[in-house]
Amino acid sequence: MHPFLFSTSLSLSGGYEEFCGRTGMNGNGPCNPVDLLEDPLPGLGTYEDFNTIDWVREKSKDRDRHREITKNSRQSTVALVHSISDAFSGWLLMLLVGLMSGALAGGIDIAAHWLTDMKEGICLAGFWFNHEHCCWKSNETTFQDRDSCPQWKTWGELITGTSQGAFAYVVSYLMYICWALLFAFLAVTLVRAFAPYACGSGIPEIKTILSGFIIRGYLGKWTLIIKTITLVLAVSSGLSLGKEGPLVHVACCCANILCYLFTKYRKNEAKRREVLSAAAAVGVSVAFGAPIGGVLFSLEEVSYYFPLKTLWRSFFAALVAAFTLRSINPFGNSRLVLFYVEFHAPWHLVELGPFILLGIFGGLWGALFIKANIAWCRIRKTTCLGHYPIVEVLAVTALTALVAYPNSYTRMSGAELISELFNDCSLLDSSQLCGYNQVETSTGNSLADRPAGKGLYTAIWQLALALIFKMLITVITFGMKVPSGLFIPSMAVGAIAGRLLGIGMEQLAYYNHDWRIFKRWCSPGADCITPGLYAMVGAAACLGGVTRMTVSLVVIMFELTGGLEYIVPLMAATMTSKWMADAFGREGIYEAHIRLNGYPFLEPKEEFEHSSLAVDVMRPRRSDPSLAVLTQEGMSVGEVEALVESTHYSGFPVVVSEESQRLVGFVLRRDLLISIDNARKRQEGIVSASIVVFTEHMPAQAADAPPALRLRGIMDLSPFTVTDHTPMDITVDIFRKLGLRQCLVTHNGRLLGIITKKDILKHMAQIANRDPDSILFN
Amino acid sequence: MHPFLFSTSLSLSGGYEEFCGRTGMNGNGPCNPVDLLEDPLPGLGTYEDFNTIDWVREKSKDRDRHREITKNSRQSTVALVHSISDAFSGWLLMLLVGLMSGALAGGIDIAAHWLTDMKEGICLAGFWFNHEHCCWKSNETTFQDRDSCPQWKTWGELITGTSQGAFAYVVSYLMYICWALLFAFLAVTLVRAFAPYACGSGIPEIKTILSGFIIRGYLGKWTLIIKTITLVLAVSSGLSLGKEGPLVHVACCCANILCYLFTKYRKNEAKRREVLSAAAAVGVSVAFGAPIGGVLFSLEEVSYYFPLKTLWRSFFAALVAAFTLRSINPFGNSRLVLFYVEFHAPWHLVELGPFILLGIFGGLWGALFIKANIAWCRIRKTTCLGHYPIVEVLAVTALTALVAYPNSYTRMSGAELISELFNDCSLLDSSQLCGYNQVETSTGNSLADRPAGKGLYTAIWQLALALIFKMLITVITFGMKVPSGLFIPSMAVGAIAGRLLGIGMEQLAYYNHDWRIFKRWCSPGADCITPGLYAMVGAAACLGGVTRMTVSLVVIMFELTGGLEYIVPLMAATMTSKWMADAFGREGIYEAHIRLNGYPFLEPKEEFEHSSLAVDVMRPRRSDPSLAVLTQEGMSVGEVEALVESTHYSGFPVVVSEESQRLVGFVLRRDLLISIDNARKRQEGIVSASIVVFTEHMPAQAADAPPALRLRGIMDLSPFTVTDHTPMDITVDIFRKLGLRQCLVTHNGRLLGIITKKDILKHMAQIANRDPDSILFN
Repeated sequence: MHPFLFSTSLSLSGGYEEFCGRTGMNGNGPCNPVDLLEDPLPGLGTYEDFNTIDWVREKSKDRDRHREITKNSRQSTVALVHSISDAFSGWLLMLLVGLMSGALAGGIDIAAHWLTDMKEGICLAGFWFNHEHCCWKSNETTFQDRDSCPQWKTWGELITGTSQGAFAYVVSYLMYICWALLFAFLAVTLVRAFAPYACGSGIPEIKTILSGFIIRGYLGKWTLIIKTITLVLAVSSGLSLGKEGPLVHVACCCANILCYLFTKYRKNEAKRREVLSAAAAVGVSVAFGAPIGGVLFSLEEVSYYFPLKTLWRSFFAALVAAFTLRSINPFGNSRLVLFYVEFHAPWHLVELGPFILLGIFGGLWGALFIKANIAWCRIRKTTCLGHYPIVEVLAVTALTALVAYPNSYTRMSGAELISELFNDCSLLDSSQLCGYNQVETSTGNSLADRPAGKGLYTAIWQLALALIFKMLITVITFGMKVPSGLFIPSMAVGAIAGRLLGIGMEQLAYYNHDWRIFKRWCSPGADCITPGLYAMVGAAACLGGVTRMTVSLVVIMFELTGGLEYIVPLMAATMTSKWMADAFGREGIYEAHIRLNGYPFLEPKEEFEHSSLAVDVMRPRRSDPSLAVLTQEGMSVGEVEALVESTHYSGFPVVVSEESQRLVGFVLRRDLLISIDNARKRQEGIVSASIVVFTEHMPAQAADAPPALRLRGIMDLSPFTVTDHTPMDITVDIFRKLGLRQCLVTHNGRLLGIITKKDILKHMAQIANRDPDSILFN
Repeated sequence: MHPFLFSTSLSLSGGYEEFCGRTGMNGNGPCNPVDLLEDPLPGLGTYEDFNTIDWVREKSKDRDRHREITKNSRQSTVALVHSISDAFSGWLLMLLVGLMSGALAGGIDIAAHWLTDMKEGICLAGFWFNHEHCCWKSNETTFQDRDSCPQWKTWGELITGTSQGAFAYVVSYLMYICWALLFAFLAVTLVRAFAPYACGSGIPEIKTILSGFIIRGYLGKWTLIIKTITLVLAVSSGLSLGKEGPLVHVACCCANILCYLFTKYRKNEAKRREVLSAAAAVGVSVAFGAPIGGVLFSLEEVSYYFPLKTLWRSFFAALVAAFTLRSINPFGNSRLVLFYVEFHAPWHLVELGPFILLGIFGGLWGALFIKANIAWCRIRKTTCLGHYPIVEVLAVTALTALVAYPNSYTRMSGAELISELFNDCSLLDSSQLCGYNQVETSTGNSLADRPAGKGLYTAIWQLALALIFKMLITVITFGMKVPSGLFIPSMAVGAIAGRLLGIGMEQLAYYNHDWRIFKRWCSPGADCITPGLYAMVGAAACLGGVTRMTVSLVVIMFELTGGLEYIVPLMAATMTSKWMADAFGREGIYEAHIRLNGYPFLEPKEEFEHSSLAVDVMRPRRSDPSLAVLTQEGMSVGEVEALVESTHYSGFPVVVSEESQRLVGFVLRRDLLISIDNARKRQEGIVSASIVVFTEHMPAQAADAPPALRLRGIMDLSPFTVTDHTPMDITVDIFRKLGLRQCLVTHNGRLLGIITKKDILKHMAQIANRDPDSILFN
């Protein structure tokens, strides 16, 4: 159906004679001027909500537009300038997307930091300072221990007047819960009241949109505003969620809104999706400060159609965004990356064992998490739980706050926790994780190879409890009606597990330097095992298990450390994790949510394994009435209208005659209705008895017959066809690669049936023993 | 034509009844058992040399094989093990490719190092030591000045007995030329005698092969052996060429040879190309020590079909190769990267000006180089120069050696030169480039902000001469009959230009600290301008101008420095360079060479701009005789043979009857000939009068008629079709995305003509006002 707009505009722009001469060659009779629509009717060639776009048609439209501009540019200077500005508009748009997303991400970081600290206390020097900033201002020195700052008061201190004692603790505890509930309540009510699309991580929907689906308002300005605000609130409320997924959504909203500034992108769904693919890269770039990783994330995980041009532009936009974020400097350390790590010791081949173990853990947890989360979401959907989202959010927030406060590792934000777990212990480090007993050694540095002390043992217990808590609470948190990302919670789970294993390995080595596996590389006093590295590998493994990312994940982690050294451990862990998780089900969390919601998404990664043929999938089935077709010159307006009304198909093939069933073209229902409606209103003499003509020449008619309605202009003259014997794997490949909406099926040159994207998805669901009616949209 | 093997094996594996029942539905008469070939005939479904593969058929074959294995795996343990080993064979193959390529690259590095030093002198402690190694062995300390080592004798020293004086210099000079000529002579004769495909960089051919072309022997074991040896010789001869491009070829040869170990890859051209795409990544990974850059290079520059699975595997293989190379440690510094750089000063926004200037220089040089090199290659092809490749190589080598020896910057190898130009000056640096005058300053470090001294002025002159020499000699070197890469020479040109500009900027700042542009960031004594960074940016710009790489180039450079800091300058320069060069012609050097050689390569990056329709491109043209078709049951064996012999088409459509022209399927010439030949030899009663039947049921025949030859098994039942009105941009898109060889054209359900890949390429050449007959192969 793609090029019907193309052929219209071709004819309008002077190509008419050429067109006419050419078709005259086929012996189709005299070449009469076709009754072309002077101006395209409003609505012609657009899509309805919850429908799939036709990539071929959109790309053809764009090429046509480009050809027009190039042709004009040779004629006048103004047109030449227009042509140049058109060529650079893509880069300008990318620049704007990068700047806007970077600025928004910076704002979100600062606001979330401030509100998170607000839960614990307030700055007397000014309530708008966060904890760190407050202590900075008050004594102009950077203390290692940021708590020792007189201007910063915890709520307990402020209310009871003392920082010690059970009462102050209880007051702080209660205030913490109250603030958390307030933030969560604000978040969920704002989402419900103004922008229901602002909830969740947004990545499943963006994947679906990028594959060619239309969800109006999903990337609109209200979604952007509300998602930005509620994301800050949700993160600050202490729920087990991150801001990385929603940042992708925010960046895509920015891109979609900015697209309206440029005709090229406003009017073309395919071109706009190129920009959105780049925006997804921008989102991850600002979330982690990893531009290359962001581009690969977009390529590997989110995008559907990713031409090379988009690769360059994504990269450019991701860089601009990362540098905008850095100049805002929300982390106060002029680092580009979220978790900056620097390890001192290299890793040893023996350590690949524990790394692979972490991969197995990550894969298992990923698979389990997906199953549990989907089961929980299904319960939410089917039972009355789904009717009380505000109560649900408040209950989960209260539970989280109640359990999280006493344990310092759950009380701090996810990003802080990960940062601390990734860190190597330095000499002045006062954190519990570095609570080793100092030993006197003659060789080596004093930081390496120490036995665990009391502080570390406490930390281990707290971490173990935090691990269990995080694993459970994340399952019920992800999917609630607040903005919620999954990256940080998954990474936190993995980082805790990794750090625990790392400490275990370290202590094992300390007490058993003479074991064979440690002997050659881990002698007493040597700095051989880095628990922080284990935490990083664990984080990558768990995130990989949940999302099934591989390369982009490794590259993001590589950008955090900036050294190629640790790529092999990361690679080993993510690969193991992916293989492990794939053994339990090939879907990542985003694909699982896409299926849960019934979006029409044709997974590009999965191969179609079954050996069915096109004839098995096409409609009409054997028992169905035959295919509804239009004939090229035999039907009256009334008959066409009756046919359209009696069916719900979104398009109709046009054939030479009912008997021959030889295919001429394809007409979309929407275009047909608009055109007939318009003709009845504006064209003189069009009544129900007027015949509808799709041919070039006029058929002979009686002298007193009403004038015919010529609709060749809205017919797609080059519908895609496959034969009935085409294996479905090839058909699916064609649908995926060309981005089709439907394809006609022929047998020996006769039209037999039609296959739509939805038919394919239903067929695939049937093969996988799922309910084919779970595919909801067109 | 894709699924004909598919349907055969489907029937063989018990799917026959299902197949039969299904087609019975279409009212094609009684369902008789089809006379299926028991075993596929040898040669059926393979390709001839210099032909294009059919991606759809190959991928369909592989899916079929996979389905078979999966089905069997449920039945027995052996089959299950086979299924698992099949699933992991891809990873195993990647591991082997990485190990082999890494090892070969290490060997090449070591050998080239040794032979390059051999040109200048010899180690008395053992001729098998290179210069650095020799001095290492002899005094066990690492001198900064590696020339002060008694064991290493230059040829002049050895022969004349003194290292001073004009005579010793002349002897060394002559020996240098002699060695260079010897190496070059060996290289060119070896290539000519044993493996003519071993010459050149190989990247244009690999691009063509990856797009689906077949060049037998191009990736064979002889090419591998000879290319490896001659690459060492060519690099050592001092010619202006690099080993990076040929390393990609070497890695692809390794991959191709290793493919023969695994049935899955040996028998399937599409699967093998996935492995080759990964091998291209491996090649760049070992060339620069940049695994991520290598993968992106393969994705951006070389590959045609790059599914996500290949992305993961390429990354894995690239890592394995990089680490294999590192454990061989050819550079003796346990660095992974070829040019390790560490800069100390950040860059300032003002410097973007000179960086963009370098981009413009790179783009201009790139465009100019391509034009000059192609013109020179055309001269070589058309004049008698092409008949004397050995003389040509020797002449160019002699010229290079003669001019290069007196200038130390051209005498050293390209990689060493670039390394030196990238370097920051350290305190003990004795190189001319660091010949600054020392000044006493009260503030800042003593390395920064110094005026140029005598050494530096000499260096500037020598660099300027080297720049001109390299720019000219590279034009005539690239394309000679020796292995020759373009990365290092291009980067050398850019690095020289960049360093010169950098020194210029530095001195400008030194003498004009009070200028407004320097005032705020470049005060006296500050370390503000790093000439090494300019060299790096220049190198990227020139390489970008020649190859039109962008993202992969930036990532390779990023991996060399390991810091995100310098991405923006690199990005600015490469983008400017690409835009600049594109203004003079959109082709990179590799595409230009592909076109020069007439390979059938359908550029995936370029849009098809013209507004022609399928009917304009298809054959037969208006004046031609009508399309040669087979009918499904009306022709005798003799008639078919006569038709095949009277034409040279590689395939024939099968229609219901000459009158109706309704399409049934498509038969390949090769398969048709093999089948008829086989039937005549083995099947009883097949004579010229036997009719050929493509239908499922047998037509009624006279009792005394000879038995019919049933050929439905070799017919492709699902040929691709487009209508005559399909715009060519869509048709080209279909060809590219699905990897078609040909496509049939219909009008209102009747067969009208055929479009092949070659027709499209000829049409595109015609539009661009080039000779359509320059497309040589099928």
